[in-house]
Amino acid sequence: MPDLSHWKQYLSSSPKDVHRLLQHLPPADVAEILASLSNDQLRAVLEEMGGQDVALMLEEWDAPTSWRIIPLLTQEKLTAAIQAMPSDDRADLIGTMPEATRESVLSALAADAAEVRELLAYAAETSGGIMATEFLTVRPEWTSEEALAIVRRDAQEAETAYYVYVTDAEQRLLGVLSLRELVLAAPGVKVAAIMKPHPITVHEDDHQELVADLFRRYHLFALPVVDDKGRIKGIVTADDVLDVLDEEATEDMQKMSWMTPSEAPYLETSAFTLAKQRIPWLLILMLSATFTGQIIKRYEDLLAHFVVLTIFIPMLMDTAGNAGSQSSTLIIRGLALGEIGISDWFRVLRRELMVSAIVGFTLAITNFLRVILLERAPVSVAFVVSLTLVATVILAKMVGGTLPVLAKRLRLDPAIMAGPLITTIVDALALFVYFLLSTRLLGI
Amino acid sequence: MPDLSHWKQYLSSSPKDVHRLLQHLPPADVAEILASLSNDQLRAVLEEMGGQDVALMLEEWDAPTSWRIIPLLTQEKLTAAIQAMPSDDRADLIGTMPEATRESVLSALAADAAEVRELLAYAAETSGGIMATEFLTVRPEWTSEEALAIVRRDAQEAETAYYVYVTDAEQRLLGVLSLRELVLAAPGVKVAAIMKPHPITVHEDDHQELVADLFRRYHLFALPVVDDKGRIKGIVTADDVLDVLDEEATEDMQKMSWMTPSEAPYLETSAFTLAKQRIPWLLILMLSATFTGQIIKRYEDLLAHFVVLTIFIPMLMDTAGNAGSQSSTLIIRGLALGEIGISDWFRVLRRELMVSAIVGFTLAITNFLRVILLERAPVSVAFVVSLTLVATVILAKMVGGTLPVLAKRLRLDPAIMAGPLITTIVDALALFVYFLLSTRLLGI
Repeated sequence: MPDLSHWKQYLSSSPKDVHRLLQHLPPADVAEILASLSNDQLRAVLEEMGGQDVALMLEEWDAPTSWRIIPLLTQEKLTAAIQAMPSDDRADLIGTMPEATRESVLSALAADAAEVRELLAYAAETSGGIMATEFLTVRPEWTSEEALAIVRRDAQEAETAYYVYVTDAEQRLLGVLSLRELVLAAPGVKVAAIMKPHPITVHEDDHQELVADLFRRYHLFALPVVDDKGRIKGIVTADDVLDVLDEEATEDMQKMSWMTPSEAPYLETSAFTLAKQRIPWLLILMLSATFTGQIIKRYEDLLAHFVVLTIFIPMLMDTAGNAGSQSSTLIIRGLALGEIGISDWFRVLRRELMVSAIVGFTLAITNFLRVILLERAPVSVAFVVSLTLVATVILAKMVGGTLPVLAKRLRLDPAIMAGPLITTIVDALALFVYFLLSTRLLGI
Repeated sequence: MPDLSHWKQYLSSSPKDVHRLLQHLPPADVAEILASLSNDQLRAVLEEMGGQDVALMLEEWDAPTSWRIIPLLTQEKLTAAIQAMPSDDRADLIGTMPEATRESVLSALAADAAEVRELLAYAAETSGGIMATEFLTVRPEWTSEEALAIVRRDAQEAETAYYVYVTDAEQRLLGVLSLRELVLAAPGVKVAAIMKPHPITVHEDDHQELVADLFRRYHLFALPVVDDKGRIKGIVTADDVLDVLDEEATEDMQKMSWMTPSEAPYLETSAFTLAKQRIPWLLILMLSATFTGQIIKRYEDLLAHFVVLTIFIPMLMDTAGNAGSQSSTLIIRGLALGEIGISDWFRVLRRELMVSAIVGFTLAITNFLRVILLERAPVSVAFVVSLTLVATVILAKMVGGTLPVLAKRLRLDPAIMAGPLITTIVDALALFVYFLLSTRLLGI
């Protein structure tokens, strides 16, 4: 990432030159420089900036930075900037405003207010919630020159000018035309003759995960969003989908660690909110783990006679949890990327069985030698511990490999079948097997 | 995802019509239909297909599917198809070939062979390894009409025609021009006057993670790849970066579960390879967990007198591991997305301290009541267990919150500081605190 200190110095001494800076640096870099200035410096800089340039900055700043800087703007400049923002970023920003501010900003927006309200009505994780409404439409009966004239007239406004959408008089989507095809088209040819009919679309209420899946499958650069009647409402572009992929992977990782998923960056979340995201799940897991304690309770007499058995409990529990988590992580991710389907259940089971046999025996042999040579424990104990290890690794990997597929089958989120839950389940299994084998083989 | 069974039936009865099918369906869907046909049906279909259409299919099929189908093609058609593929997909396919096949394919490719060899020389996860070499270049002294003529002539070949790269006679990158700007440009204006100078670039040997970071930060659609001398070697487009984000998130999840990361889809990996990716790490963790066993060994006498203490070991170990994993997952992901930096270490520590205090006390109170009311254990034992829980959750969240930042500081991958390692460390801490408090407070 670039070193911007030189430019920061430059701007501190010449606050008028932000517009010139924007000729040399990408908006993201200028936004970072501005965010690092003191409020006094920033006020001097903002005074010289036009609404268009402020809009570029608001597109880049995250919500807390925006809300630190917005109070430094005059009401007129803020309205001008918000008016100049792309519809999706604008709706996101207005969505973070407190109710009162939101209404005053919306009334200042006048003509654009209805559009912002419409975008705000979509759930955040739907295609409607991430789409932009600036797109170019043409009619099928137009000639390529007429279509190109529209591109020339409106391209500056559009989120992408690389695709032009062909609609009927009711805005129903009939086809798509790339700017490339439009430029290559022979003069006089009708749009209907060169458009691609039946373009891939997504419904305005579909989840953004489906959007990501469609971009993955069809290598798209832009995807039109339609309503129930097939009317085009907006477009999602590839750069938006990069954010979606990051968000979805983060959400999966959070669920896999048994937290309530949250989009908000860590450092912007209060300690109380962070605690709330974690407590219910830790409670459930804690109470489930007491079940494992009950198994120990049942075998208290065994442990009272063979205290040495207690020494191996942590190793058996940890190894079971780790072995199971490995399997579940691979399967959860494979399911999320569509590499594994529900119908692959048996293949997964068979493969995990083979893998776990190889892994289990390798660990057990190492452990047997360690217990004999380093712990100097009796051979009978070493044998029981190692046999438990083989059985445990196999059980853990079967559980870790199949529960995510089962969850998917039951229309639950496979991500919950990860480390913490798998560990809780296989810990109980590991101790049960351990005590069962000990009782049988140690002659008690 | 679409239901393709109707089209599959259609194709089985009319094997000649793949080309027509491609007018109606996206290549990804046609490729899925073809992959589901029997070898006999497939042979009939392939016989009727042109090299261009076969190339489209090879771009879609994954490696195992390609290698099942390629033997059904004649040598001539395979060569024609490979010649028609985009450079990046072509190099990827040839890269999966056994040495002998690769050489015979390369010699059949004739003129294109040198380019393929050059691409194959890049490491898979560098920008050179993911770039395509089909891009459009123009000279600064040309007029906009001359530049547009080049686009018209070569657009079909290029990976993206939406950006045109301005170079000098030595192919050094001087600027970039979007097709939109070219279409909007006044006639007769020079390319140098309308190009954007100093475009954002990436070096051919840079890691694909940097490519992803640049796309995230600058909302790019295409990124030129340059060599040491600033000569443009290829471009990476947004659809390639979607794959990179998926790969990098998968890799992080695998490392977080302590597996050797692998790009290969689960179902395409042999049981032996899967076992190899897991064994070394499980061994390390297993041997580390024996340290926790040593702590138990030191307190054998305590446990012999108070066997009831053993019952709570699984709950304490599991809760410690889960609490620590939650924190480490959030911090690892925040570091990966650039939301958290090394300098935020102290803020993370302070926040985790507050969060863990809230979480710890909530869990401890619940646990205290449960142990008294349901387990009917003595109040003194309930008190020791609950106090251990508070201390353990706080310790676990401090360890889970700070080790990833420390790893980043030491230029290690923060992802290794996840669930399995954190669990092993905090399990030992939990038991140590447990036995220490028990010895002091239970009057032994």
